[in-house]
Amino acid sequence: MTYCVGMLVRQGLVALSDGRLTSGSQLSVARKNILMGTGPASRFFLMNSGLRSLRDKTLAYLRQSGFQPPTMLAAVTAYCKALRRVMEEDREALEAANFKFNLHALIGGQLAEDEHPALFLVYPEGNWIAADERTPFLAIGTTSYGKAILDRVLVSETHLETAAKLAYLSFDNTRLGTADVGFPVDLLTYRRAIRQWEEFHFNHDDLALQHHWWNQHLAKLAEALPDLPGQRELERVASC
Amino acid sequence: MTYCVGMLVRQGLVALSDGRLTSGSQLSVARKNILMGTGPASRFFLMNSGLRSLRDKTLAYLRQSGFQPPTMLAAVTAYCKALRRVMEEDREALEAANFKFNLHALIGGQLAEDEHPALFLVYPEGNWIAADERTPFLAIGTTSYGKAILDRVLVSETHLETAAKLAYLSFDNTRLGTADVGFPVDLLTYRRAIRQWEEFHFNHDDLALQHHWWNQHLAKLAEALPDLPGQRELERVASC
Repeated sequence: MTYCVGMLVRQGLVALSDGRLTSGSQLSVARKNILMGTGPASRFFLMNSGLRSLRDKTLAYLRQSGFQPPTMLAAVTAYCKALRRVMEEDREALEAANFKFNLHALIGGQLAEDEHPALFLVYPEGNWIAADERTPFLAIGTTSYGKAILDRVLVSETHLETAAKLAYLSFDNTRLGTADVGFPVDLLTYRRAIRQWEEFHFNHDDLALQHHWWNQHLAKLAEALPDLPGQRELERVASC
Repeated sequence: MTYCVGMLVRQGLVALSDGRLTSGSQLSVARKNILMGTGPASRFFLMNSGLRSLRDKTLAYLRQSGFQPPTMLAAVTAYCKALRRVMEEDREALEAANFKFNLHALIGGQLAEDEHPALFLVYPEGNWIAADERTPFLAIGTTSYGKAILDRVLVSETHLETAAKLAYLSFDNTRLGTADVGFPVDLLTYRRAIRQWEEFHFNHDDLALQHHWWNQHLAKLAEALPDLPGQRELERVASC
């Protein structure tokens, strides 16, 4: 499996994907997020989870089309068209071999000057949902382990830097929970005010400081949580 | 589904279960953890996830036996015996109707003066694993959403009060992630030094303070996380 999370906040976009590839029990490393488009103002990101073969063919068809989408809606539509072409060609053979036609995608960016940054989650069937103020993040792959911290903390007003930190923490929670998700991590941020993309690439040791800092401070915070009702009384009894 | 977590720390035991019961799309409330045994020194807890009918019959057989286990090993063995009797009687009919024979259990306590407190996870087949210093918690049901905070923070040295708070936070993370887990919460703690059980029962509003406190402080902590490598530079560029 994979862990990819996309975030849409007021200041821009965040896209994070893990880099572990699993084929049976064989592990290797792959880049799962990419920036499409050529010029700085025509870029958008694409991240996938599911069957690598479906991803590679869908991307090949998308690139072959040479289409430069003028809007994010056009971008997601072009992706869905390529995906459905692959579905027509490959689904039957996969299902005959008991594979599921499985490819989820997160697509995000800002293409036209006058459009808001947008973030989409595309299902294997080629239908999609969009992030908004009430749904500031969308995730694909193994999404359960890293969900709580985003549910609790991430809002549309969260600063872009903090959103990127939350994406990392959410990934780190997932990596701790499941062997299918791991380093390296690819991170993209898009700052709306200056229309600028930044790319980061982290290995395990690059984020060891952040990992240990978080564990230590989280432990202190849990200790400091206001007592559960009845708990204080108990402690007094116990220390008599 | 269900969320039950048991913890074995130096100071004693913690057992937490959610109280939501799902039958198809119908929700109701049930108690999923119970203290077995009669006298204060003969008590141990039992929590289940899986098919309610299997739980109720297994418990009925366990109680009917009238057996007062002298040790925790005897307790878990008696439970497994009752479970396997139910398996012999009911598995075939369930599987014929495409149900799985599914009943997981967490069993914990301290029965003999000279035995350490113990915590077991029993699989539907009647085999089990035990918690130890390196595995201070075991969970059954929907275990993924609430796993990260325990992976990061809970160790054998964690104080009993903090362990109980972590059990709550882990439940709260699960409840936020899945509609199958919800209030009320039943919590049991066992303090080894005084060999004393305490029972707590919380509804949503009882823990509203803790929920909001945690969200607020977690957000501040995420903001304070040391910058990811390269991030500080970026901020400077952005604010130019």
